[in-house]
Amino acid sequence: MESKCKLTYFDAMGTAEPIRYLLYHGKIKFEDNRVDFQTWQSMKTSTPFGQMPVLEIDGKKMHQSIAICRYLGKKLALAGENDWESAQIDMAVDTVLDLRIKLSEFYWESDETVKQRKKATVLNETLPFVLERLNGLVKENGGYLALGKLTWGDFFFAGISEYMNCVTQFDITKDYPNLAALKKKICELPDVKDWISRRPVSQL
Amino acid sequence: MESKCKLTYFDAMGTAEPIRYLLYHGKIKFEDNRVDFQTWQSMKTSTPFGQMPVLEIDGKKMHQSIAICRYLGKKLALAGENDWESAQIDMAVDTVLDLRIKLSEFYWESDETVKQRKKATVLNETLPFVLERLNGLVKENGGYLALGKLTWGDFFFAGISEYMNCVTQFDITKDYPNLAALKKKICELPDVKDWISRRPVSQL
Repeated sequence: MESKCKLTYFDAMGTAEPIRYLLYHGKIKFEDNRVDFQTWQSMKTSTPFGQMPVLEIDGKKMHQSIAICRYLGKKLALAGENDWESAQIDMAVDTVLDLRIKLSEFYWESDETVKQRKKATVLNETLPFVLERLNGLVKENGGYLALGKLTWGDFFFAGISEYMNCVTQFDITKDYPNLAALKKKICELPDVKDWISRRPVSQL
Repeated sequence: MESKCKLTYFDAMGTAEPIRYLLYHGKIKFEDNRVDFQTWQSMKTSTPFGQMPVLEIDGKKMHQSIAICRYLGKKLALAGENDWESAQIDMAVDTVLDLRIKLSEFYWESDETVKQRKKATVLNETLPFVLERLNGLVKENGGYLALGKLTWGDFFFAGISEYMNCVTQFDITKDYPNLAALKKKICELPDVKDWISRRPVSQL
């Protein structure tokens, strides 16, 4: 008997999209539960730490998107085979996370002057610095973020790059051919491709 | 033959202190290489992603503090024994990380008005919301962050709480007895206690 699986998040890609990519790729049937802001406000205190996404899987309630991706990665044989291999995925993923956080910081800033200052720093300095190195890392790893093979880290990158593109308003991989090719590789996996072709259009 | 181990970071606790706690507790001999800002500027581009800490261990160069802590946790038998156990540590750690990031955001803000606004939100809303729930989580887990036993997540919490205390300028565990007891438990482990008694005094 397959256990009930349910992903709860806003009606957005955001930090949930990497999880959706992994669930679809792994052919894990799930309810894609999208809540509006008002519903979220009323349910927030009943979630583990007042944050989404929340994934109910195997009778467990999980939170924290990267912890969820890592867990799914292990379940789907998309993880490292030893401690050092696992660490290589983790290092790449947390590097992408740092970039996502820097982008979020300016995106959600309400003071317009500060927002523009932060935006300039991130777009002109942080983004090219990190992406150039990530691009090199993918080259070193034969087209993947780590280990020379497909891992959950690649799904994380492809999924979260959608959020990053929404924030920057351009394709962040456009000047980085190895990153662009990696993203394309994930997005053309049959189940991910099918999902992308029919997913709801959202702002983030 | 023991491999050479070297931790490179600023002359600060910051995101390196959880790693130091784990290394000392695990009796892993290491060089605690502290660099000043000027030295850092000159070496930044030669590090994997322009960030510290960097840990050289087992002939490998590692970056990303949480990836390093997870790796050390596995080496020191302070990790989960299956995917779900590992995920429980990861969820708790990333929750603490989110809090650390929120604190960093106001701490490093250069616009004074924005800084004070962010500080108020974090101290009055985010911090109590998260700490109350973390305090409950530790109670549920018999005095630990996860699994009812000592894991690398507890070392992460105790180590990074030093940074968070520097930012808030008060002991963030003061109103949360289970968190205070957990931190005390880690800080009184013999090798951690010895390190704390002799570590350099730093601002962060």
